[in-house]
Amino acid sequence: MNTNRIKHVGVFTSGGDSPGMNAALYAIAKAAEKNGIKLTGIKKGYEGLIDGDFTTLKSYDLQKLVHTGGTVLKTARSKRFMELEGRKKALQTLHTNHIDALIAIGGDGTFKGLLAFSEICDIPFIGIPGTIDNDISGTDYTLGFDSAVNTAIENIDKIRDTAESHNRIFIVEVMGKDSGYIAIHSGLTTGADAILIPESGKDFIYLLDKVKNYDSEDAFLVVVSEGDEIGAELLATKIKEINANVDLRITRLGHVQRGGNPSALDRMLGVRLGVAAIDVLLLGKKNVMAGVLNNQLHFTVFEEVVKQHQVNDELQELLELITN
Amino acid sequence: MNTNRIKHVGVFTSGGDSPGMNAALYAIAKAAEKNGIKLTGIKKGYEGLIDGDFTTLKSYDLQKLVHTGGTVLKTARSKRFMELEGRKKALQTLHTNHIDALIAIGGDGTFKGLLAFSEICDIPFIGIPGTIDNDISGTDYTLGFDSAVNTAIENIDKIRDTAESHNRIFIVEVMGKDSGYIAIHSGLTTGADAILIPESGKDFIYLLDKVKNYDSEDAFLVVVSEGDEIGAELLATKIKEINANVDLRITRLGHVQRGGNPSALDRMLGVRLGVAAIDVLLLGKKNVMAGVLNNQLHFTVFEEVVKQHQVNDELQELLELITN
Amino acid sequence: MNTNRIKHVGVFTSGGDSPGMNAALYAIAKAAEKNGIKLTGIKKGYEGLIDGDFTTLKSYDLQKLVHTGGTVLKTARSKRFMELEGRKKALQTLHTNHIDALIAIGGDGTFKGLLAFSEICDIPFIGIPGTIDNDISGTDYTLGFDSAVNTAIENIDKIRDTAESHNRIFIVEVMGKDSGYIAIHSGLTTGADAILIPESGKDFIYLLDKVKNYDSEDAFLVVVSEGDEIGAELLATKIKEINANVDLRITRLGHVQRGGNPSALDRMLGVRLGVAAIDVLLLGKKNVMAGVLNNQLHFTVFEEVVKQHQVNDELQELLELITN
Amino acid sequence: MNTNRIKHVGVFTSGGDSPGMNAALYAIAKAAEKNGIKLTGIKKGYEGLIDGDFTTLKSYDLQKLVHTGGTVLKTARSKRFMELEGRKKALQTLHTNHIDALIAIGGDGTFKGLLAFSEICDIPFIGIPGTIDNDISGTDYTLGFDSAVNTAIENIDKIRDTAESHNRIFIVEVMGKDSGYIAIHSGLTTGADAILIPESGKDFIYLLDKVKNYDSEDAFLVVVSEGDEIGAELLATKIKEINANVDLRITRLGHVQRGGNPSALDRMLGVRLGVAAIDVLLLGKKNVMAGVLNNQLHFTVFEEVVKQHQVNDELQELLELITN
Repeated sequence: MNTNRIKHVGVFTSGGDSPGMNAALYAIAKAAEKNGIKLTGIKKGYEGLIDGDFTTLKSYDLQKLVHTGGTVLKTARSKRFMELEGRKKALQTLHTNHIDALIAIGGDGTFKGLLAFSEICDIPFIGIPGTIDNDISGTDYTLGFDSAVNTAIENIDKIRDTAESHNRIFIVEVMGKDSGYIAIHSGLTTGADAILIPESGKDFIYLLDKVKNYDSEDAFLVVVSEGDEIGAELLATKIKEINANVDLRITRLGHVQRGGNPSALDRMLGVRLGVAAIDVLLLGKKNVMAGVLNNQLHFTVFEEVVKQHQVNDELQELLELITN
Repeated sequence: MNTNRIKHVGVFTSGGDSPGMNAALYAIAKAAEKNGIKLTGIKKGYEGLIDGDFTTLKSYDLQKLVHTGGTVLKTARSKRFMELEGRKKALQTLHTNHIDALIAIGGDGTFKGLLAFSEICDIPFIGIPGTIDNDISGTDYTLGFDSAVNTAIENIDKIRDTAESHNRIFIVEVMGKDSGYIAIHSGLTTGADAILIPESGKDFIYLLDKVKNYDSEDAFLVVVSEGDEIGAELLATKIKEINANVDLRITRLGHVQRGGNPSALDRMLGVRLGVAAIDVLLLGKKNVMAGVLNNQLHFTVFEEVVKQHQVNDELQELLELITN
Repeated sequence: MNTNRIKHVGVFTSGGDSPGMNAALYAIAKAAEKNGIKLTGIKKGYEGLIDGDFTTLKSYDLQKLVHTGGTVLKTARSKRFMELEGRKKALQTLHTNHIDALIAIGGDGTFKGLLAFSEICDIPFIGIPGTIDNDISGTDYTLGFDSAVNTAIENIDKIRDTAESHNRIFIVEVMGKDSGYIAIHSGLTTGADAILIPESGKDFIYLLDKVKNYDSEDAFLVVVSEGDEIGAELLATKIKEINANVDLRITRLGHVQRGGNPSALDRMLGVRLGVAAIDVLLLGKKNVMAGVLNNQLHFTVFEEVVKQHQVNDELQELLELITN
Repeated sequence: MNTNRIKHVGVFTSGGDSPGMNAALYAIAKAAEKNGIKLTGIKKGYEGLIDGDFTTLKSYDLQKLVHTGGTVLKTARSKRFMELEGRKKALQTLHTNHIDALIAIGGDGTFKGLLAFSEICDIPFIGIPGTIDNDISGTDYTLGFDSAVNTAIENIDKIRDTAESHNRIFIVEVMGKDSGYIAIHSGLTTGADAILIPESGKDFIYLLDKVKNYDSEDAFLVVVSEGDEIGAELLATKIKEINANVDLRITRLGHVQRGGNPSALDRMLGVRLGVAAIDVLLLGKKNVMAGVLNNQLHFTVFEEVVKQHQVNDELQELLELITN
């Protein structure tokens, strides 16, 4: 075993922040300490990697932050790292500081960055999927997805109070970029009357059929993914065309879905993946993302990771059954 | 004492729903039962009063709903009641059903309706201030205000996670119509860097001064009342003009502020005002709103109620001190 | 396919209530309606089955209750059903009402009841695992477990505030009966210093070693499963023997872990398993529990289900790594 | 005006921690900075005052912590300060560090300590009432009370789910020491069937009368203050004596009531009182507690503060009406 090769690991968070990142950092610190590995926190993602903006991470401090949202390492998107120039500078920083492995917590873009970096840097990289969008292959859930859905449904539950009090139609737009995961999960779990996601071949016509017969004597909830092509405003217009009497409101949940204390599942996922990242480094692997696939630890090469994560068939069938 | 005059009370909720309305209904039912008064629930506000859309309210059932948002009586805005024709029909409905007193839970518009109705109907009316906006004179807080602020700050706390992780400026727009109460409370209690409310003589220039020197190394939170004249988009434009490098996002909290389980304060306020409404009817009073002013039960004639509730001097001074 | 055999399904909840049961009932109702199956709700578990205490379940009504805790069908433990006499009476009730399949949502005891009942009743039974304890084989999670853990950690997070403010040791006892699942999940996700579960071969000695060196300059959190043999009081005594100066408190989270709105995961699990229960009945299967194993729908015969669900190796290793 | 006399203020938190203390510290720091006053944070209450365990408080840092529970200054009970010896040492520490005014956030015991200290130390002291128990005269609410009640009712709401699902009696014991405030507020706002508080002349007989007729077909919730003389266990015994068939559980909410993010009201109270403490120091006052009485800023001399705060008549009457 080449355990002794890894002496100093750098870790950073990149892309949008997501709840559970601090739990992952805690577990990484704990596992590193247990294995006698030095751990350096790199601030603001690839920006800090280029600039050598470092901090020390101790499990003793992070233990108090397992329950917190955001990321103590801060995060950023880095234009400089998209240029070869920037990546060369990052490589220099790694050498200067004798960092011999990297753990990156982030989404799609983060792993594309690692792939590009691997062309000039041959130390091992381990990825951890951190994004609320759940749009990454090789894991059942990304870090932050469950928290985002819980935030979404708590807010949709509140909206239901008003919708029922007024017999009103509410169109609630949730996040997820090109992925319908947040929408389908939050819609199915709040008793939504219709759910619109980008992956669905079906258009919004079925929704209009339901609305045509809507008698204005009850709430009617529509959950729309921000990635769905119709968009909340146009949908509202179409609904009013078909049934002019409806009382209708649009709410965009927005950035609240991105923050807040992580859910139990996300904290646990962070702990599991953080420990797995150190374990797999010690086993000599490189350039894989640690995920939990079919509820088991699973490691996927970056080339596979960046492929689109599709809403699976079981979910699509549930959507069909429940909302039609 | 003319206690024996009141035998049958009708109650309705009107205008926007607000958390705590069901708690008030519970207390009204309890107090009515204790005093041998028949209680009829009128559905959908003035609409149900016109149409005789009634339901029975028992404290036994409402006891299970004290903790719920929305209103079990449903609510609506009524165009018909704004016409004399509609009010005459409502009067007829009251007579037909031998209702000899009315309790109305709602906002400004609700009390204006009662004033107009009092010109042709001389049974006693009692109002309870139910609106999240806290824009009613004669009470420290309206029913639902504290819940709305709690919902707002829990969401702003989540946004802080992301703002700090990204060193980002967030403009958060909160509700309140023409009143800055929700904005000033939610801004002062979330460590906001700036708060913009319609009542403030001050314009947003002071905010721009702060932003000019903002070094993009931390979060910067702005809470704006929806009633403030500048508006989130224009504010964003102004900020970018003064400091082009900032990373800025706008979030509108929207309708989530209106729903959800009521806070402890709102439930308690509902219980206090519900019991007070029955008590004051039994004392022979009419056409007053029951409120809690300076933390004491207080009854205000409708003519006074509909005057604008101003953000008081202490709050204005706090705003000045904390955000400048 | 014998799809046409099933015309009338009865469903009941049994044992302790758990969050997500109403979501499962909603999905069962929806799937039954889509497939032209009559659905009857049986109240109070086996008690209602014996007595014919029935109610009608419509997806239209249940849609408003997906987000609620508890069970609208009520639940109970039935001594009568443990006797052959009671089961014969239940059989008679089923025949009289032409119910030709049963869906039962409950725990270990519920499935043992179905096994005993299957000796005299040959209509198909489908089980759905509903218990907060996660002590059932054949599913990654039982309905209610994730909600219970989320409730536990939100409360432990609050306790952390006080523990850190006072530099205090807190022993927090969580539920789970003989299973350490709630303890291990809630301990690992709150930065607990020690976690005691019944499945661990390790005794509490390692904890005492940590406490011996505890310098009273920080919080120290211990999460103990109610099934662990030492118990919170004896543990407190042992700790004080080893370090007399510590400031120590015990908190039992108790029944709050059992109620509350279900988490996103539990609602989704309820929806998935509810639909799966109807699907599998239509496929002609009988006497299996629908679960989600390795994140895939999975059906397990009752004989296997009632075997003990062990905390798996990965979790045990995490426990070892994180808390030692 | 003797504004220029105060140049250096020390602040500490003492007694049990309570949500809102950090919000108060933020406001104190902001107001001190605006007025050119140096601010020193004293750690662990009177212990830090004796030992000179100090830290610097900046509004820039505290702004990020307005929403957090506990106290960043830590808190402790001090045996040494109860002796003249300890107080003399504290006096010496103040002189050495040129601290010319003290702000103390705490409860009853804290203010007694200030009174004793005032015998040998003549710099001005200002108190802020910080305790969840609401047992202090001179203020409508103490800092932390509203948060504790909100935590209590959210947990009692969860217990209601189980109580209704099982038709069960629940006895829920809440905190409050000798004060029934938390019990009466949390009971009235959760639809409790009975509430037992120490201040009530009435014994638990009325409760037994209700239970005698309880038909076990619904939930029955009892909220008991920890200060009530009967206690949950004896009450349970009495209930079972009168109605042997009931299904009954006891839950003690315990320390969770003390922590957690402060509610909107507590944050606002912290901000108001923090600013008021600095303001009143600048006006030359000394040895008063800043409170909000009848919703107005109010200053009470310590001698009055330490008198018992009684549950007022309106609340007692509500209790009588709602639960009988």
